[in-house]
Amino acid sequence: MTGRTFASDNNSGVHPAVLEAIARANEGHVHAYGDDPYTQDAIAVLRRHFGDDAAIWFVFNGTGANVTALSSVMRPFNAVICADTAHINTDECGAPERFTGSKLIDLPSGDAKLTPEQVRGAVRGVGVEHHVQPRVLSLTQSTEYGTVYTPEELRALADTAHAEGLLVHVDGARISNAAAALGCTLAEITRDVGVDVLSLGGTKNGLLLGEAVVFFDPALAPDFAFVRKQSAQLASKMRFVSAQFSALFEDGLWLHNASHANAMAALLAREAAGLPGVVITQKVEANEVFARVPAEKIAALQAIADFYVWDERTAEVRWVTSWDTTQEDVRGFVAGMREVLGG
Amino acid sequence: MTGRTFASDNNSGVHPAVLEAIARANEGHVHAYGDDPYTQDAIAVLRRHFGDDAAIWFVFNGTGANVTALSSVMRPFNAVICADTAHINTDECGAPERFTGSKLIDLPSGDAKLTPEQVRGAVRGVGVEHHVQPRVLSLTQSTEYGTVYTPEELRALADTAHAEGLLVHVDGARISNAAAALGCTLAEITRDVGVDVLSLGGTKNGLLLGEAVVFFDPALAPDFAFVRKQSAQLASKMRFVSAQFSALFEDGLWLHNASHANAMAALLAREAAGLPGVVITQKVEANEVFARVPAEKIAALQAIADFYVWDERTAEVRWVTSWDTTQEDVRGFVAGMREVLGG
Amino acid sequence: MTGRTFASDNNSGVHPAVLEAIARANEGHVHAYGDDPYTQDAIAVLRRHFGDDAAIWFVFNGTGANVTALSSVMRPFNAVICADTAHINTDECGAPERFTGSKLIDLPSGDAKLTPEQVRGAVRGVGVEHHVQPRVLSLTQSTEYGTVYTPEELRALADTAHAEGLLVHVDGARISNAAAALGCTLAEITRDVGVDVLSLGGTKNGLLLGEAVVFFDPALAPDFAFVRKQSAQLASKMRFVSAQFSALFEDGLWLHNASHANAMAALLAREAAGLPGVVITQKVEANEVFARVPAEKIAALQAIADFYVWDERTAEVRWVTSWDTTQEDVRGFVAGMREVLGG
Amino acid sequence: MTGRTFASDNNSGVHPAVLEAIARANEGHVHAYGDDPYTQDAIAVLRRHFGDDAAIWFVFNGTGANVTALSSVMRPFNAVICADTAHINTDECGAPERFTGSKLIDLPSGDAKLTPEQVRGAVRGVGVEHHVQPRVLSLTQSTEYGTVYTPEELRALADTAHAEGLLVHVDGARISNAAAALGCTLAEITRDVGVDVLSLGGTKNGLLLGEAVVFFDPALAPDFAFVRKQSAQLASKMRFVSAQFSALFEDGLWLHNASHANAMAALLAREAAGLPGVVITQKVEANEVFARVPAEKIAALQAIADFYVWDERTAEVRWVTSWDTTQEDVRGFVAGMREVLGG
Repeated sequence: MTGRTFASDNNSGVHPAVLEAIARANEGHVHAYGDDPYTQDAIAVLRRHFGDDAAIWFVFNGTGANVTALSSVMRPFNAVICADTAHINTDECGAPERFTGSKLIDLPSGDAKLTPEQVRGAVRGVGVEHHVQPRVLSLTQSTEYGTVYTPEELRALADTAHAEGLLVHVDGARISNAAAALGCTLAEITRDVGVDVLSLGGTKNGLLLGEAVVFFDPALAPDFAFVRKQSAQLASKMRFVSAQFSALFEDGLWLHNASHANAMAALLAREAAGLPGVVITQKVEANEVFARVPAEKIAALQAIADFYVWDERTAEVRWVTSWDTTQEDVRGFVAGMREVLGG
Repeated sequence: MTGRTFASDNNSGVHPAVLEAIARANEGHVHAYGDDPYTQDAIAVLRRHFGDDAAIWFVFNGTGANVTALSSVMRPFNAVICADTAHINTDECGAPERFTGSKLIDLPSGDAKLTPEQVRGAVRGVGVEHHVQPRVLSLTQSTEYGTVYTPEELRALADTAHAEGLLVHVDGARISNAAAALGCTLAEITRDVGVDVLSLGGTKNGLLLGEAVVFFDPALAPDFAFVRKQSAQLASKMRFVSAQFSALFEDGLWLHNASHANAMAALLAREAAGLPGVVITQKVEANEVFARVPAEKIAALQAIADFYVWDERTAEVRWVTSWDTTQEDVRGFVAGMREVLGG
Repeated sequence: MTGRTFASDNNSGVHPAVLEAIARANEGHVHAYGDDPYTQDAIAVLRRHFGDDAAIWFVFNGTGANVTALSSVMRPFNAVICADTAHINTDECGAPERFTGSKLIDLPSGDAKLTPEQVRGAVRGVGVEHHVQPRVLSLTQSTEYGTVYTPEELRALADTAHAEGLLVHVDGARISNAAAALGCTLAEITRDVGVDVLSLGGTKNGLLLGEAVVFFDPALAPDFAFVRKQSAQLASKMRFVSAQFSALFEDGLWLHNASHANAMAALLAREAAGLPGVVITQKVEANEVFARVPAEKIAALQAIADFYVWDERTAEVRWVTSWDTTQEDVRGFVAGMREVLGG
Repeated sequence: MTGRTFASDNNSGVHPAVLEAIARANEGHVHAYGDDPYTQDAIAVLRRHFGDDAAIWFVFNGTGANVTALSSVMRPFNAVICADTAHINTDECGAPERFTGSKLIDLPSGDAKLTPEQVRGAVRGVGVEHHVQPRVLSLTQSTEYGTVYTPEELRALADTAHAEGLLVHVDGARISNAAAALGCTLAEITRDVGVDVLSLGGTKNGLLLGEAVVFFDPALAPDFAFVRKQSAQLASKMRFVSAQFSALFEDGLWLHNASHANAMAALLAREAAGLPGVVITQKVEANEVFARVPAEKIAALQAIADFYVWDERTAEVRWVTSWDTTQEDVRGFVAGMREVLGG
């Protein structure tokens, strides 16, 4: 094996073009904290995707993007509605509650996607001082189960949210994978369907480090610069974060990387589906494959290439592909699994 | 001119050896979030400086290091004692208050250094529920005025702090410059003199991005991993942060860079002191020079090479040198100033 | 009708003996903030119930008791496990999240009671930095549905909690009603079964205002005085809060009031159960009755005596009795309902 | 002696008329949480003082009033400018920092009063993301040193604040004493001079417990109901808080009590000024007297009637008079002091 695993797209490296962009930005002195030409360029690049009036801010990581995005549009007595599987709900060690001071109202979901009916049902107690006041609907795209909201589904959710007085946040740590899966532009699954604020993922799709917060209406968060700084998410040598975004979003590298990761997941799902005892449990729409496997074989399978057990009780596992996963990685993994599982 | 300025060491670039270390770390897949050999190596490298039992954690930036260090050892009713000039007090947009929920007790200081008497005087109301309970003494080394605490001064402050029931935190965004100035090891001005927790700077001394939090007694913050994650300071592709620390602290690059920046500041101070109307206002011990200049000439001076006005009322300015500042940069700047100022 | 309703025990008045105690305490000057003989007496009175080493603190209201109790034993990365119906989860406008900075993990419950299995299932991700770390199991006694945990149930829950590394908090806004229902002392359903910290209700049981926080092991919250003050829950003229507690808990008034309220609820449930279209939906064990009634008659029923609709979708209503509810109040209400409902 | 001391107006009792109002409110059931005729009446009473469009909210205590007032008009990156002596800065155990997440910028003041020049000088870094953004000027009236701002001084401060983009908050724990001292109505030293939000004191002036937050422009804090509830400052049996306010502010009891306390302080200052070794250190304008006394006699003086040592280093003490302080209390205290001090 190559050393590449199926544990997480966070385990992957940096795309060479991104490293080159960092090296190119390493020239002389520029102003710190984002007042530099590299950052201006990266913002211009992203505005070509998201619109000329989008307010775009770079932060360090996905949790940083989510908590600054959320806390900049909420008061502590507000609440966020999200799926129970949402990264903000389960994988950020309570950072959203800590930064916002607010409750997350988490709704059950078999496929990590929410429906307008669920959202409507979760908006309760409006105007009553005893109850938290829902303010944001947070959706993950692609979801934590590798599923994808269609533009129509997003539009319906956003319309519902807005009718209920909610803003729509998208945790887009893997939004490039969703766009690739749908054959959509990034705007078509965010701005155009009514999303208000986006956590735009970079790290999982080939960056060294870096995410962006995108407000489609800059009036939503006029004070975001202060929120970012006070949240310890402002990079001093900003050029080295922003130059990565230019590299990723300038010429389609984002789409190339995401499409490739998706294709590798599709290949893996297709090949693994035929293995004895393997049941694919979620639609494979982006770069994640969920499957039930024989519980007693899990350790042997992980010895081939590392991956996470999602739910020990059901022996459900998660396989994630990355921009740098190769066909050989997939075929080698499947071949190894076949040896372990028979068939 | 070269494009290099005297505005901030945050304006400088990445040392080539650091960029190379990043590139070398870009090989295959490793576990995310720090469970990887690069991070283990970086911790081992830093333990050679700080002791085998030091608990060492990497974070994104200086504010992140300070707020996670402080909040991990405080309860909200505690307080931090610091100089009024401290970065945590003036330049972090209230991040310390927001993360800790606590008061900063800021003490006046002409040279940005505190004395044991001041610390003792600031510890009041202990045990009385109406008053915040001081818990941490935070010192900056080198200070925001480019001055340096000697080991003896640090020892006296730490002894006082401990006698008063306080822990000692050092904001070491420029601690390498202080060590270089003093001819001390890093341990000699931290662990050996009683410092409890250190924000170890990397960015200003040649990294792309990255700081470390060092606890000399790991029992002080057994839960730091959770504090870091919940504070949105945990990098997913951690190897690219930690590999930089190995490059900087493995073979003396930290000292080389800091010594060079210090030497450039000394040169600049020496040369500028002879210019008409220029008065150096602080001891130049590290890589910062503070000077009063003729107010009406400031704009013309900034046109030569950018720098910050520290206090408009007194026409005091700050010149910062970096690891990449050259003698030519300094001499060119001074020559330009001479033309503007006459003499 | 008498003007008394079935909306809430918060709508009831102050027991005359409590008002008299306040008046008696209104003599000359005493030290503020609890350093006074009335507060010492009240603590002594409560220690006769809860043990000589209990740490007892008075606060203003139930939310204040809950948030100071919880935040004093938690760090922000911790979590509270509670029923989805819990007052802290639904009726405190997010105060627990705001004061603790932590997540509430709310578990579904048909009768507002939790089981050891549920608690065990909710303790996940222990030691993993990405996940909140459960620290407190919070139970409500009597519950928000008027049901009551038996001592055996509490013991089993506390044993489970402790085995999982959790502390046990009881929101005892109506714990007197629970003790009365069970024929237990207050200690028998708190200290003796392993409860660690209790929010001891006073207001709903006849006080003007006031709740207490009781730590059975004072070492659990050595800093509570500071937490209380910083949480704005320290009364300056404390004697007028504490004197009420002496009045309530000195000679059995607490039990008298609670038993009476329970008896009125039992009477109401018995009488109402026979009315056409009325279905009692929860066990009536304390001073609350939940019932489904004909949806189209709700307004007419509320015109007889005010009460809350618990769930509009199912036409479930809540009737609460108080220490000052009379048999005539109940019989008058039932008679009025009979007129509206027929039968 | 009578048992009455000079330690604090918090040590005083409840005015009989206030207790009677509580007793009168203890009739039948009313809606909880303020939706009751007593609260409506109290709001109407206070609007006669503060204007028909004032938004008026009752809370438990002074810290509660201050933190809800401040946090409802601030974001965490904002800051409060106040005197270093301010109660919010020194006597609330960091509650303002904890509730707001913000920095307090405390300015030195010999008499506990601020000047417009100081305020202007403290507004720095506006619009710069590294610095907290001042948002509120908080003044205490009467001050912690018993001094009083004149209407002209308040107007000048408010004009300055507004010109700098700040709101004006008054901590009016003793505002009745200030109004009495100035011969002004309450509006003349708040609304009419540009104050935006007032913490209206009740407890120190004869209430059992209770303060109010008054917004002169209700649009300033449209969400205050949620802030109050989430801050655990909403009383369930609200009528017993609000009825006290009606009693105090309906017929001039507030002015009677405050004037009396002021007169007793004036008497005490006059009489004590003649004692050997006693130097009055602040203008005695309200109900507090600050004096230096012979350090070695402090204990003997406290044995006559309790009081606080304000500053041990200078042997400065504070004597506070209350609504219930009598001439005999004062004369007895002075006579006792004369015996101790000679003369």
